[in-house]
Amino acid sequence: MSELTIWTYDWVPAGPRGFVRDLRLRWACEEAGLAYAVRTIPFEGRETNHLDRQPFGQVPFLDDGGLQMFESGAGLLHLARKSEVLMPADPAGAAETLQWTIAALNSIEMVSVPWWFLTISGDEDNQLAGWLGQRLAHMERILSDREWLAADRFTVADLLTADVLRIPQVRAFGDRPATEAYVRRVTQRPAFHKARADQIAQFEAADRERA
Amino acid sequence: MSELTIWTYDWVPAGPRGFVRDLRLRWACEEAGLAYAVRTIPFEGRETNHLDRQPFGQVPFLDDGGLQMFESGAGLLHLARKSEVLMPADPAGAAETLQWTIAALNSIEMVSVPWWFLTISGDEDNQLAGWLGQRLAHMERILSDREWLAADRFTVADLLTADVLRIPQVRAFGDRPATEAYVRRVTQRPAFHKARADQIAQFEAADRERA
Repeated sequence: MSELTIWTYDWVPAGPRGFVRDLRLRWACEEAGLAYAVRTIPFEGRETNHLDRQPFGQVPFLDDGGLQMFESGAGLLHLARKSEVLMPADPAGAAETLQWTIAALNSIEMVSVPWWFLTISGDEDNQLAGWLGQRLAHMERILSDREWLAADRFTVADLLTADVLRIPQVRAFGDRPATEAYVRRVTQRPAFHKARADQIAQFEAADRERA
Repeated sequence: MSELTIWTYDWVPAGPRGFVRDLRLRWACEEAGLAYAVRTIPFEGRETNHLDRQPFGQVPFLDDGGLQMFESGAGLLHLARKSEVLMPADPAGAAETLQWTIAALNSIEMVSVPWWFLTISGDEDNQLAGWLGQRLAHMERILSDREWLAADRFTVADLLTADVLRIPQVRAFGDRPATEAYVRRVTQRPAFHKARADQIAQFEAADRERA
């Protein structure tokens, strides 16, 4: 029996399939060769039905033996300590991986997610666009100079950053060839394809049960 | 000579004094009793004058001996591994501290900072207010039940969460007595007062040099 369990919804509509954040944890486990199970909570009533496990009513959350965690970013950093595939063991490589993981969460997503939220809420010309453009221009400059963000090789920082940058609306924001090549490079990895296919297959199976 | 160096601007206008994010790292060092120096880069030209150290043109960044890092959240997690004052050594306590640290960055600030940005840009009735209200209501529920977020005692997760929630506009958003008591409790700590006073004194000294 696997000790690692990733919790997600039992079903989601078509739109978010392939993007629900349990994918980040599945992908990390696939990269690291860590055995894991996936379990679900009902999508219906999600605002309140699992606040004891995820206090904002979101997914994913993680069980690691007796240890419980929420926040996909925290789960990634927790899994990264189990495998050098995800994070180098040397202090400099670990620090660089940590800084770029946090940058994805707090320098990129802190702008891209609210921008995306306003955009899909109908405010396509919203005031966050200028700020997003600056952040993405910085990333384009950085990704023009290197293949991977940290330690000269794939790490969990690339997994997370590519997951943040592959959102279709973000990908379509301006012409950023180095970023586009980076997103393709990272999402070409077999572990990403496996994680994404497994997530989509799970939700499609739930469609059939509902039918 | 201290091995830890926190880098910030040489001067900022009155508004952000007491809130520039080098304060987070100063505060963590003060809590943990870690010796540190503060060094500065010019505020003028900040958009481009230190991109080799902070690729988004922001502060703070950290030197730890030969190791260099940016992102205040990453710096906090790095410092937390040096002192159990900031993060418990046991796996459950460490995991809980990590998850709440990431929650502050990616579940609270991801909404509160863009909301604040739109608000000070003149769009006080912006579309992020509903989302912010939900996140803050979850925090109010959580903080009604506990004194500290992780491991039943002060950790770096409280340092960061209180720093996120003490922004005046966020503090004035609705009536949330448990959150207000929490912000007061955490910011009453002597290490916070020392860090804040030192930051403000540094910028005031820069005023006198400019005069």
